[in-house]
This record gives sequence, structure tokens and C-alpha cells, in this order.
Amino acid sequence: MKNKKILLAARPRGAVEESHFRLVEAEIPRADDGEFVVRNHFLSLDPYMRGRMDESKSYAASAVVGEVMVGTAVGEVIESNHPKFKAGDFVETRTGWQLYGKSNGGGARKIDPNYVPLSAYLGAVGMPGVTAWIGLNEHGKPKAGETVVVSAASGAVGGTAGQLAKLKGCRAVGVAGGRAKCDYVVNELGFDACVDYKAGNLDANLKAACPKGIDVYFDNVGGPVLNAVLGHMNAFSRIALCGQISGYDDPDALAVKNFRAFLVNRINLRGFICSDHLELWKPALTELGQLLHDGKIKYRESIAEGLENAPAAFIGLLKGKNFGKQLVKLI
Amino acid sequence: MKNKKILLAARPRGAVEESHFRLVEAEIPRADDGEFVVRNHFLSLDPYMRGRMDESKSYAASAVVGEVMVGTAVGEVIESNHPKFKAGDFVETRTGWQLYGKSNGGGARKIDPNYVPLSAYLGAVGMPGVTAWIGLNEHGKPKAGETVVVSAASGAVGGTAGQLAKLKGCRAVGVAGGRAKCDYVVNELGFDACVDYKAGNLDANLKAACPKGIDVYFDNVGGPVLNAVLGHMNAFSRIALCGQISGYDDPDALAVKNFRAFLVNRINLRGFICSDHLELWKPALTELGQLLHDGKIKYRESIAEGLENAPAAFIGLLKGKNFGKQLVKLI
Repeated sequence: MKNKKILLAARPRGAVEESHFRLVEAEIPRADDGEFVVRNHFLSLDPYMRGRMDESKSYAASAVVGEVMVGTAVGEVIESNHPKFKAGDFVETRTGWQLYGKSNGGGARKIDPNYVPLSAYLGAVGMPGVTAWIGLNEHGKPKAGETVVVSAASGAVGGTAGQLAKLKGCRAVGVAGGRAKCDYVVNELGFDACVDYKAGNLDANLKAACPKGIDVYFDNVGGPVLNAVLGHMNAFSRIALCGQISGYDDPDALAVKNFRAFLVNRINLRGFICSDHLELWKPALTELGQLLHDGKIKYRESIAEGLENAPAAFIGLLKGKNFGKQLVKLI
Repeated sequence: MKNKKILLAARPRGAVEESHFRLVEAEIPRADDGEFVVRNHFLSLDPYMRGRMDESKSYAASAVVGEVMVGTAVGEVIESNHPKFKAGDFVETRTGWQLYGKSNGGGARKIDPNYVPLSAYLGAVGMPGVTAWIGLNEHGKPKAGETVVVSAASGAVGGTAGQLAKLKGCRAVGVAGGRAKCDYVVNELGFDACVDYKAGNLDANLKAACPKGIDVYFDNVGGPVLNAVLGHMNAFSRIALCGQISGYDDPDALAVKNFRAFLVNRINLRGFICSDHLELWKPALTELGQLLHDGKIKYRESIAEGLENAPAAFIGLLKGKNFGKQLVKLI
């Protein structure tokens, strides 16, 4: 038995390609004192990883060329010399894109696959869910009856954000790419409406979907969708700026034309990432776990099979080809 | 004796010209029951008035074509049938661009020219001062030692904002147009530095003036200055968006290119106008009056002589030709 790892082979200039990654084999690591070894079942693929591939200043340290690509995974402890984790425990760790990882417990959490499915700890009951919870509750602060628009609405973050808004009594309006995603957002996730940004008429369709204007915009994409949304924001509305996937390859695509709207409507915009608010993870995860366990929030997954397919799946994610939370099944 | 009024004659498309105004004579108004008549001494000219000239959606109702141009003035009550105001009182009213105005007391306040100079009630101890106070204290929230950048730093709002930041123990850095204004901002108002945006090298000069980056940006101008500032904002920094004078004639000039900075640095931006916070006017004016009375904040005025020169002075204000608070002396 060997470990397999995907390394960051080179930093992209513009679009990510498979050549920026390299698959290698290695020995399965052994646990020293205070460490454990995990066999990963699912690897999470998330848009934030694009930022880690760059050397340019971002909110987290860059991934290192020649080392395992950064990422979070869930799996089972197979060997432990750590007092708090034992063989057979299920854990979420930041061991990156590999089949087997070693951890000293930092950033690791025990999880219970009998409470919600194992993979959900990478989605609605993990970082994406917490991101949705923080952005909506701490920054968006919607009141019942207000209109909340969420971009990338079929994704792990957006889908959760919109469902949380519905649970608060808001009108939830999604923006997603394509009819199938929009149908899912409305029919399965229970949003009130969903605008297909690929269908054209974004501005008119947003207006129709938000007859009382927009009070909260949870933005995962930036660019043209943000520009369109700005024209419909109400006075004293809020924008929780969570992601800018439309411009990760080309920051110029994120230019905002209608900046006057921020003053005219006294908009409050806040960029945030979930790790800014570590104190909120516990209450957020507790609530999200309960909601998922009780069937009050739903999610969907795109699952790539095998570590070797992670680069292609990640490239697809950046292009919006995934449908729901993108995972790689490793076992 | 006759009254003189300046009417809004036509709405501008693009730049304001004198032909958009019309000077007319009229009878001096008489006070009915519950009213008083004021003889105005100073008329305030402020950038917000440009927005009132448009029909397009803004945060306040448009001025009406064919009626007196909106504005605030200070003067002396010459006739009163109002229980709270008597002849000889000095008052600030929203009677607009005219020598004599009639008020029912709504939006009027009694002022004391023996405490601070009469015209200061249109500047540091009036709407501009309150705007500076609210933007800095409620939205910027600077801590001692932080760097606060203020655009239009020699103006009524910006000059006050920077001096308030200094009083809080911050590093205050102005942005202004031309060497004379920058010298005044540093030497008279006591800012730590001032960058001349007309001198070129805005980006490098901002960087040099803000060696620890920017924690708070109090923005009165938008456009190229905002774009440059965004490149130097620190993590968790704040932008109090108060004005966008660089784009009042052409909103496209307000486009923000480096929007990625908002996410990378988790910037909190809030558009605001002082009338959003009526509950803060009393504490703000009390503090500002005391500071001015005690000589702890300074200001400068550009005074046009005579109502007939108000349009030219206003056009100059929009082009940055004023130096300090722009007033029109009416008496």
C-alpha cells in the first residue's frame, strides 16, 4: 500500500490547468508521538484554493510549489499516538490532496458519520456551511420579510445561505448558471426564485425576481452579477462579500462600474472569510448539524472518483461545471 | 427693499453651467402664524447640491425646476409669529439660495454667533462637521495609532475629519489638489502628511505617506483616489463613503477596478449621509462647538460676495477651486 499525493507543480498565470498539479506516490506516513494518521475518504474542493495557488497577497499563505496542495478532507484515523484521537475515529483534517495524511491535531475535529453523512462535514456542516452562516448572520443580518439574493446559489455556500435566509422568513432569490441549477435551487432548496445569469437579461430578471428590491446580497462571484445586483439594492442594504470566483483568473473582471450605488443607497459592504470568526464556528456548526440532521436544510454533491481526478474536478469547479458541493471520493 | 432668489432653471446633463440657474427678484416674504422670516447672512454651498439638481434617484428629493435652489443658510430673524423664534435671533434654516426666507421652524436651529463665528454653523459646527464626526466615529472607528486617510482634506468635511482623527491619536493623511492645499492641511490643520493628487505618482506618494498601510479611509471624492487608496488598505480596514465628487457629472468615472481588495483585506465599506443619523447630531454638534470654541479644530473659508455670484462659486466648488468651506456672503 502506498500513499498518493497531488503536489502544486507550478503557479498558474490566468486559468488553472492540469499541468499545474503533479500526482506522486509516497510511503504512507507513520504517527510520531502526539500525531495520528488518517486515511481520507473525501477531499473537499473549494474556490478559495485558487487563491492559494497564487503567490500574490491574499488572506492566507500561498500553497508551496512542490508540496502537497492544501485542502481539507474527512476520513478515519488508522494509527494514533495522539491522546485525543484514536484509531477508528472519524476526523476532518487539513491534510491536503492526498490519500493518507498525518496530523498533530491542529485544525482537526472529530466528526460523527452517524449524525450526518461523512461528506456533509465538508459541506453544510463544515467550512462552506459556516461561511454561509457567518455571512448571513453577522454581515447580512436579514430581517423577516426582507429579500436576500445569493449568487452561486446551487453551491455549498450559496445553497446553505439561501436556505438559512428562508428559515429566517426572508424572500430568498438565487443566481446560478443554467436552467438545471436554477430549477434545483427553487424546487429542491426552496428558494423563492432563481435567476439564470447565463440566460441573458440578468438585470430585468433580477428586477422581476426582487419586486421589493434587494436588502441583502450574499456574493460568491463578483463581476457582472455584482454589477447587476447593485442596481437593485435598497437603501441601507448589506452586501456580504464572500467570494469573487468570476475574477480569480483575471482580477480586472471584478471591476465595479456602478459604484455610485454604494453612496446613493448607503450600502454596507463587508468582505469576510470564515476564519476571521473562529469564535462563531462552534455555534454555527451546532446549528447547521441540527438543521441537517432534522432535514431542514438540503444539499447536493458533485463527486469525482479518485485522487487522480481532483485537478480536472477543481478546474471544472472554477468554471461552474460542478452542481453542488464538489468532492473527490478517495476510497 | 426686495428679495433676491436663485432658481434652478434647468437640470444639467454632465457639467453644471451658470445657465442652469436664474436670478429673480421678489417681494420679501411675510410671516404668517407659526412662521418667521430670516434675513440670511451666509449661504452654504456644498457638493451634495449637485445631486439635488438631477432628477435621477439619489438619497434626497430633487430640487424643483423653477423653484428656489435648495440649501442651508445662516441669518437673523427679522419678523416672527413663531413661538420659539423671535426677531433678533440668529438661526440656521433650509431656506435655500435667497436673501430672505420664510420658515415654520422645521429644520431650523437657533445659533449663537458669540460662541463661534456665525459662518462656522455652516461648516465645522454644522452639516459638514457632523458628517465628518459621524463618518469617522460611527463608520471609520479608528483606534489610536491607526492611519486615517481623508480625501478633499482641505474642505469643510475632510478638514474636520482629519483633525478629529488626530485628536484620537491617529496618523492623519490628507489627499488634496495642489501644493497650497496640501501645505495648509499639514501646516495649519496639523495632518501628518498630505498627498497632492494632481502631482502624479499618487500610488507611490500614498504608500510613502502611509508606511503602515491605511486603516480608515474617509472618502469624499471616489474615482481615481479611491482606486489608489484601495491598494494600500490593511486587513479589516474601514471605508466611510461620504461623497463621490469626482463622478457627480459622470458616474462612469467612479468605476472601481481593484474590487478584489475588498475581499482580500476584508474591508468594510459603508456609504452614509449625515441625515441617516439624526440622533447623533446633538452630541456631534456639542462636541464640535466645544472643540472650535476652544481652538482645537481649525477651518478655512472661501467666501463669494453676493448672491448673484453663487452659481459661479458652486461651479468652482465642483471643480475643486474652493479652498476650505465655500460660502456666499449675502449681506
